[in-house]
Amino acid sequence: MKPEALKPGDTIGILGAGQLGRMMALAAAQFGLKTHIFGPDGGEPAFQVCAAGTVAAYEDEKALAQFADAVDVVTYEFENVPAATAAFLAARRPVRPGPFALQTTQDRLVEKDFLNGAGAPTAPYAAVSDEASALEAASRLGLPAILKTRRFGYDGKGQILLRAGEDAAQAFRALGGAACILEGFVPFTKEISVVGARGLDGSFVAYDVCENEHEHHILSLTRVPARIGAQTAAAALALTRKIADALDYVGVIAVEMFLVEEGGERLVVNEIAPRVHNSGHWTLGGAQVSQFEQHVRAIAGWPLGGPRRLGRIEMRNLIGDQCEAWPAILAEPEARLTLYGKAEARKGRKMGHVTRIFPENE
Amino acid sequence: MKPEALKPGDTIGILGAGQLGRMMALAAAQFGLKTHIFGPDGGEPAFQVCAAGTVAAYEDEKALAQFADAVDVVTYEFENVPAATAAFLAARRPVRPGPFALQTTQDRLVEKDFLNGAGAPTAPYAAVSDEASALEAASRLGLPAILKTRRFGYDGKGQILLRAGEDAAQAFRALGGAACILEGFVPFTKEISVVGARGLDGSFVAYDVCENEHEHHILSLTRVPARIGAQTAAAALALTRKIADALDYVGVIAVEMFLVEEGGERLVVNEIAPRVHNSGHWTLGGAQVSQFEQHVRAIAGWPLGGPRRLGRIEMRNLIGDQCEAWPAILAEPEARLTLYGKAEARKGRKMGHVTRIFPENE
Repeated sequence: MKPEALKPGDTIGILGAGQLGRMMALAAAQFGLKTHIFGPDGGEPAFQVCAAGTVAAYEDEKALAQFADAVDVVTYEFENVPAATAAFLAARRPVRPGPFALQTTQDRLVEKDFLNGAGAPTAPYAAVSDEASALEAASRLGLPAILKTRRFGYDGKGQILLRAGEDAAQAFRALGGAACILEGFVPFTKEISVVGARGLDGSFVAYDVCENEHEHHILSLTRVPARIGAQTAAAALALTRKIADALDYVGVIAVEMFLVEEGGERLVVNEIAPRVHNSGHWTLGGAQVSQFEQHVRAIAGWPLGGPRRLGRIEMRNLIGDQCEAWPAILAEPEARLTLYGKAEARKGRKMGHVTRIFPENE
Repeated sequence: MKPEALKPGDTIGILGAGQLGRMMALAAAQFGLKTHIFGPDGGEPAFQVCAAGTVAAYEDEKALAQFADAVDVVTYEFENVPAATAAFLAARRPVRPGPFALQTTQDRLVEKDFLNGAGAPTAPYAAVSDEASALEAASRLGLPAILKTRRFGYDGKGQILLRAGEDAAQAFRALGGAACILEGFVPFTKEISVVGARGLDGSFVAYDVCENEHEHHILSLTRVPARIGAQTAAAALALTRKIADALDYVGVIAVEMFLVEEGGERLVVNEIAPRVHNSGHWTLGGAQVSQFEQHVRAIAGWPLGGPRRLGRIEMRNLIGDQCEAWPAILAEPEARLTLYGKAEARKGRKMGHVTRIFPENE
């Protein structure tokens, strides 16, 4: 083990207390690691399973300093950790994945520039900073196109689809005049993702390619393996490794891609998630080592685990009142239910997921 | 679901804060259940992963009353819960498994009487309450035999092997004059166990029979399946179900048995553990549903999960400084490491375990 590796009994500090932090904390516990959760809302689910918790704002430097003192490494469950928070903590403790991955993925324009620089294909795009540049971008890329805020978008929030003939300047105003990016239309037939992990020593392991379906911009179904050609699958894994290497990444990374089928299969990178990812939830029980264990291994400086899949996978999110199906799911012999410990099943809220594992060729 | 079933968000109260309580708490978290740990020593491992904890003596009725108010069901990780504690809690909340299972398994004499009453074969035995009855029992059963305290024995503690010619009265004095039982010699060739679960509705599910090896009276290795005949394996499962039914049991139960091979295979029940059991730790990652999840399902009043084994199993305990092998184990592709979060690797202390899963016929 390297000197910077954790040892059992050490403490992982996790920024964010939602279901991703919760599942990371449970994975850390397997190895006798303690977790200390930091988040602004004490009612969040990760606080139910940690050795210690700090309820404070991400800007609270006194709380951050105490948190840093109490942990051996810092990680996070979401990419919108404020840059100042990451920098404050990185000056005191290793932050994994590092601040560069955060900076790169927090801003859609920076991310697209990075991807193209790393040789990863993206949709055509243009920066939009005012109404004039909105109109100019729409004219250059053509419509349909999607106007997205550069920062803080997720699950379809902060974006507007512009159909042919629609007004880009009006859409820019509707997004509050925030700095945006216009993304050209990609005629994709499938959405896929690769969930991989890069170790402190640069080693890389990825799960099989996931095929994702969304409803109302929220992931609803992941199938593994994706129904794509073997060469395309290999290319998706290679792209993910290239991106992880270029970020000098440590931890689990997910890369969302579009599959374009126009005389052959072609990949377009949509976005990078510098964290464990919803499309990798099936690895809990569906793979030799889960993405959460893999993330813990990576940020601990330990060897990565095996990504072997235990069957053909279907993972469905339980959104809002879909979680009320829990009694029926518990009674299904081959279903693995995970619920996140959230008190209220609000509309659009991710409450849990169910993974079904079938024999490989069924 | 029955009205007495839990629902996600409810709280399981667990008496005992060791590794068994810890692994139960982690399993409960999968379903969005909270856990409240009650134990006398705040440094114990289960306190690191629970939503709430009470550090108090098992005799502290004020603390017990508050604990009962805060939970929806009570379970335990060890059979030596004081009878008064169990009764106090059972008057306030469902205690699962019930107090009858505790009473029966806390006392080796009561347990043996119960087993014989239920039609389960045991070693010959005799109650020993003073020096005279010790000598009488030794003369009747013959030596070698084992003198054991009726209560509070575990991992070989509280027992003395009496060889031919040795003095039973002296052994009785050496055990402090506590009420004892003398158990006649069983010429066993293997030690096996069955880990099963009985639901609130009387349903029963068991894992494949485990074959156990001990060192210094502590479990060191469990292999599954046990290398015994199919008929014997079926008989072991049937015996376990018979015992669970007779106890009107709810939860995971383990029955330790001896295999005697004298012109065919014969089973002798050694003892009952009214809880999750060390020989079932392989089910974490080695079976479709772990014994900890199974226990949670049972005491929650939910359907039991599937016991399907994912390969041929070898589970080794990591005792004392054996846990120092963790870096090598983490680097093994097919090894699943669990560490319990104990600070000090004292001699004879169970620090963790490693499960290796091989293809079935290898």
